[in-house]
Amino acid sequence: MFLADGREARAVARIVMKFGGTSMAGTERIRRVARIVKRQQDSGHEVAVVVSAMAGETDRLVNFCREASALYDPAEYDVVVAAGEQITSGLLAMHLQALGCQARSWLGWQLPVHTDDGHAKARIESVGAEALSAAMAAGEIAVIPGFQGLSDDGRITTLGRGGSDTSAVAVAAAIKADRCDIYTDVDGVYTTDPRIVAKARKLKNITYEEMLELASVGSKVLQTRSVSLAMKEGVRVQVLSSFIDDDAPAADTIPGTMIVSDEELDRMQEGQDMESQLITGIAADKNEAKVTLTSVLDHPGVVAQIFGPLAQANINVDMIIQNIAQDTGATDVTFTCPLADLARTQAVLEECKAAIGYDRMIADSKVAKVSVVGVGMRSHAGIAATMFKALADRGINIEAISTSEIKVSVLIDEDEVELAVRVLHTAYGLDGA
Amino acid sequence: MFLADGREARAVARIVMKFGGTSMAGTERIRRVARIVKRQQDSGHEVAVVVSAMAGETDRLVNFCREASALYDPAEYDVVVAAGEQITSGLLAMHLQALGCQARSWLGWQLPVHTDDGHAKARIESVGAEALSAAMAAGEIAVIPGFQGLSDDGRITTLGRGGSDTSAVAVAAAIKADRCDIYTDVDGVYTTDPRIVAKARKLKNITYEEMLELASVGSKVLQTRSVSLAMKEGVRVQVLSSFIDDDAPAADTIPGTMIVSDEELDRMQEGQDMESQLITGIAADKNEAKVTLTSVLDHPGVVAQIFGPLAQANINVDMIIQNIAQDTGATDVTFTCPLADLARTQAVLEECKAAIGYDRMIADSKVAKVSVVGVGMRSHAGIAATMFKALADRGINIEAISTSEIKVSVLIDEDEVELAVRVLHTAYGLDGA
Repeated sequence: MFLADGREARAVARIVMKFGGTSMAGTERIRRVARIVKRQQDSGHEVAVVVSAMAGETDRLVNFCREASALYDPAEYDVVVAAGEQITSGLLAMHLQALGCQARSWLGWQLPVHTDDGHAKARIESVGAEALSAAMAAGEIAVIPGFQGLSDDGRITTLGRGGSDTSAVAVAAAIKADRCDIYTDVDGVYTTDPRIVAKARKLKNITYEEMLELASVGSKVLQTRSVSLAMKEGVRVQVLSSFIDDDAPAADTIPGTMIVSDEELDRMQEGQDMESQLITGIAADKNEAKVTLTSVLDHPGVVAQIFGPLAQANINVDMIIQNIAQDTGATDVTFTCPLADLARTQAVLEECKAAIGYDRMIADSKVAKVSVVGVGMRSHAGIAATMFKALADRGINIEAISTSEIKVSVLIDEDEVELAVRVLHTAYGLDGA
Repeated sequence: MFLADGREARAVARIVMKFGGTSMAGTERIRRVARIVKRQQDSGHEVAVVVSAMAGETDRLVNFCREASALYDPAEYDVVVAAGEQITSGLLAMHLQALGCQARSWLGWQLPVHTDDGHAKARIESVGAEALSAAMAAGEIAVIPGFQGLSDDGRITTLGRGGSDTSAVAVAAAIKADRCDIYTDVDGVYTTDPRIVAKARKLKNITYEEMLELASVGSKVLQTRSVSLAMKEGVRVQVLSSFIDDDAPAADTIPGTMIVSDEELDRMQEGQDMESQLITGIAADKNEAKVTLTSVLDHPGVVAQIFGPLAQANINVDMIIQNIAQDTGATDVTFTCPLADLARTQAVLEECKAAIGYDRMIADSKVAKVSVVGVGMRSHAGIAATMFKALADRGINIEAISTSEIKVSVLIDEDEVELAVRVLHTAYGLDGA
């Protein structure tokens, strides 16, 4: 038997399951996780589990570090905070054993999870899979602390907050897992935030690129790095809820949202409704700020004089609009940046005022970015036009626009963001029953 | 320059400092420890520090294990509980760096501290010292979590509760340290418990063997294993208080009690008062129980029938008395065992009643053992006689006696234990000013 992409299907599937800190917070919750994992194994699969620290534990440990020194050594920080995941991995192995499973913990330095030496923000280079695969094939459940790795010089590293999703995907890639199930506090990826649109629908499937675009515009289901890695390594990732009834059937039969490649999505949708959804989801992000420089003298190189220093300051500029006033030869330049970087942006441009030669700098933090995302827009014109018309019909003013191959974003007044999301959700036919 | 025992003295001394959980409990206390350590380095020494987990932390982690399963896997227990020392070692390194010191943590698997695979009660086989010595020689303070090691198959082990003293001595032996300073909540070893005898004096020196005898009869200053290891490896151990004013001078000038070999003690005391103290200390232990079997038929092999099964049950029998009644051919056999083992002792002997053939079993938990310890008694007769006379003069009845080369112990009524200690402290001339 072969999978659709040509890989030979094992009679026994190999599954990586990842549980976050909320799921691991205390004895009763770890016991629930153990039951969910055991059920997965009972349904005939080889199972590895990647775990976070107990909710609150990493914060507790980070606080000790901050109290030690404002400029704490990131290498020692990694020694301290990696302890949180070490504890939960040992405990989950015990809980699994108590249910009659064979299980053992594999710490980051034991596998090892090789990383670079960027302490507190390390990147995974490879995951030793040989011993792990052998143990799993022998029926042992592998319990792996997320977030932690080993540098070339033999020291503990960590991947940065939220890194356990990335650990799970990296382990899945290394052991050639059939699926990486990420258990979260939501039960999948929705067409938009269900708190804004009651009729938001859970997506059965979404492509890596769509997931990346949604993550970059405010959908916080998965860490962006983990999605990039899954795309690069071709790991099928499923997002599903850890708050399922633990007497419910195994994850196979209660799917969340599967994140797959374009090609796999095409295959999955073969024979389905020809007119598949053009737009997959709608996201909103209030963490944007708008900056306008007025009366900039429009001479060659002026744009570089504005955005060069910002790039050097590592400030990520998104939308840019340049309105040329025909009569004066001066222009207004407007752009957006993350709200968190607004103060630094203003400082940088204040310093460059003479070199740029602008009149006034106007900052506006009361803006929001609304984005529609879908691989379908590659092959269909008119997606943006539908967006602009739907917003105009409700009197919502568009202050700026940016697009990528599979995304159209508009900047609007922050007060109108929920209205805009609802209007677009209906306009693209996403409303569920 | 050579030390008295022929080792070449380094211009720079090499010191291992060990701090327990009370000293490491929270940011302020760790900062205090960092200042004490820095002062030791500032006085010109190479320094390694061995630390315990924050007070209470190991109990918290052990509880999680017990909640997971009554029969938890000791290998996973080690993964969980070793995290406590990992955290404090990283934090102390940070605090030292904040004071301007070079410092780094060396975890048990990094040095490594090789142990056998007796999880939760592992024994140290060797300590890798090469990288450690190099770092220390380069001026870096090495911070080492106590209690933890690495088994041959690459898994975390721990040494059992209180194992950090043993870790410190093992590290000191490996790096050929000039001294291992154990910081505790007392400021040294006393002639007896100062809570019982106000005139108890702090000892400047004590031999390994005396320390071992005192530890085995209830003096809880150091873990017995650490003293045995120090004796075997010839590590000079100093017990001193961690509650010294941290603006005070370095430990060199405010000594606690130094634990040394017989030979070193002889050299130290050369030229001193010829009539050196015969008795070093007096200890009392209330955790004893007495068991009497009455009317045991006195036939060959009966003693083996009593004590064989107890030895098999791993019950440590101490004093034994056999009173032969001339007329009946039957005998009463009395012995002592640890109070904690009394119930098991009774169960074992109940089971063997027919085989032994005794009349009644009488258990008495209201007994205490008082011991006088001193290497001086090797060369002096009359130590025991002095003891018996002093106790008899105050009407204290001796129920049993046991002796070793440097110890005489008597079993008495628990109610008379404080009186006995005071009487003996005076009788042997130990009372201070």
